[in-house]
Amino acid sequence: MASSPKYLTGDKAAINEFIDKFDTFLFDCDGVLWSGDHVFDRVPETIMMLKARGSSPLTSHPSCAFNSYSSPSGKRTVFVTNNSTKSREDYLQKISNLHIPCEKEDVFGSSYSAAVYISRILKLPPGKNKVFAIGEAGVEKELAAEGIPCLGGTDPNFRRDMTPKDFQALADGTALDPEVGVVLCGLDFHINYLKLSTALHYLRRGAIFLATNTDSTLPMHHSFFMGAGSIMIPLQYASGTKPLELGKPSQAMMDAVEGKFQLDRSKTCMVGDRLNTDIKFGIDGKLGGTLHVLTGVHQKEDWDREDAVAVPAYYADKLSDLAVVA
Amino acid sequence: MASSPKYLTGDKAAINEFIDKFDTFLFDCDGVLWSGDHVFDRVPETIMMLKARGSSPLTSHPSCAFNSYSSPSGKRTVFVTNNSTKSREDYLQKISNLHIPCEKEDVFGSSYSAAVYISRILKLPPGKNKVFAIGEAGVEKELAAEGIPCLGGTDPNFRRDMTPKDFQALADGTALDPEVGVVLCGLDFHINYLKLSTALHYLRRGAIFLATNTDSTLPMHHSFFMGAGSIMIPLQYASGTKPLELGKPSQAMMDAVEGKFQLDRSKTCMVGDRLNTDIKFGIDGKLGGTLHVLTGVHQKEDWDREDAVAVPAYYADKLSDLAVVA
Repeated sequence: MASSPKYLTGDKAAINEFIDKFDTFLFDCDGVLWSGDHVFDRVPETIMMLKARGSSPLTSHPSCAFNSYSSPSGKRTVFVTNNSTKSREDYLQKISNLHIPCEKEDVFGSSYSAAVYISRILKLPPGKNKVFAIGEAGVEKELAAEGIPCLGGTDPNFRRDMTPKDFQALADGTALDPEVGVVLCGLDFHINYLKLSTALHYLRRGAIFLATNTDSTLPMHHSFFMGAGSIMIPLQYASGTKPLELGKPSQAMMDAVEGKFQLDRSKTCMVGDRLNTDIKFGIDGKLGGTLHVLTGVHQKEDWDREDAVAVPAYYADKLSDLAVVA
Repeated sequence: MASSPKYLTGDKAAINEFIDKFDTFLFDCDGVLWSGDHVFDRVPETIMMLKARGSSPLTSHPSCAFNSYSSPSGKRTVFVTNNSTKSREDYLQKISNLHIPCEKEDVFGSSYSAAVYISRILKLPPGKNKVFAIGEAGVEKELAAEGIPCLGGTDPNFRRDMTPKDFQALADGTALDPEVGVVLCGLDFHINYLKLSTALHYLRRGAIFLATNTDSTLPMHHSFFMGAGSIMIPLQYASGTKPLELGKPSQAMMDAVEGKFQLDRSKTCMVGDRLNTDIKFGIDGKLGGTLHVLTGVHQKEDWDREDAVAVPAYYADKLSDLAVVA
């Protein structure tokens, strides 16, 4: 059994010690930085503080906190999101609009992770290299950026009711493109029977099954909506096949992040609000630490349970509790 | 471990003995009588033969088969379907159009089973007695026949894209009817993000979660499409709650069938094409027998597996193999 996480809120000494331990922070976004379009209080200032604060642990004594903060090198802040509806470009836009300092290279989304996996790991053979995508524009854009041909997605031809002709054409295969080798499922606000049935038929013909991520819910407006996993799960249930998942907590995503940033895992901390994605992602990836914030899906009682899927090393009420040292 | 099922195809003596053992046959429809709109060869004749054939076992000797067939009392044939998209009236129409002898009282659908459960078992209190339904007209009709107020269903207001306003109105509850006490999920060819999100919000506010059935796939045109279970499963995944299921293999359905027909379970045989619904339904219900036909979802290898969910007592290549005695 993992030991209890250390509570950081209000404890300046502990916060300083925590920050000094790491040179890179990987942030989940929804539930950590914002909920829907509502950015949490003082999040931009907190990220700015980390980026400005020196990475070398001059001291962990609270009275010297401002010394280390004044170091010019700063922490690296990376935004690792399972939200597949947005491309990195879209995400950068959103993050910047909320006045959080960020560059395109700092964003790692599950659609990007999936596209990179398809193009660089799967290396689909010619004649079987198309992807049937369930998802929004983010999936399409990241596939296009990797040069992967894609069907489905936001195509209006798939945003309609199923007709008797569609049933027949799927069953006899005339509605299917023989070059589709992968079904990739992400969050789709326009999910329907036609898309699910089309994807099922590709899977039954041997297509590789990938999911951007399998989060069951999407936190928005202080409530929960259907997450990418809830869009994918009908395909898993109907096909009897589990998808390979490319978002957190999949280590395919961690490998991609590590490869890109050349990070030292022991000096990297994952910050998130979900035990089964963010915290598990950090623990499985053998990062130096994990920080759980209570502004999203999981709460204290979720890791206090006997069967908790993962227990963070640290926790705080909210991300901006770290900024108390600044 | 259950013993191997007896193979009936081509074995007149075994078929006669089998038929003579029972006075009531419960038939699954899709995959047994037809696939989609295609009725299987000689199915109407087989049902006619059973209805005409005496229920008292005069003899099981093949040479005397015609004697027992000529008995006027006949077998009772009941159609027990998990298809929730049609009401009993609709089903009678379909069965009659295919020239299969049937009366409305002979039809038992999962929507009917669910409506009966809600009105007679749940007995919802006033002020909490509305049902939010995901499904087609069959669900609505059966709920209306039991006098249960229903939202959702085929209402065009729910057959549209989700808007930003919808997200807000679901989150703050203004889009929700406080009188909804049940979410009932059946097969819905018009499933979308709005319906799923609305149902999820009712579940999170404490609505009872019911499913007409949980079949993962729908056999049509010799292929498989999304079944009612695949429409329901996102809600189970996102809410973390399993629905009470009212179709096969739920014994709620068996109890309702028994109550209506006053049947002698030991003289009743369930005929189906799915081990996890039909055959399990018959075995759990302690019926005198189960017959599996190979014209639908499951095949011989499915019960030969170590972990087979259920093993039938009899099997035949197709239903009309029984008609060889007539």
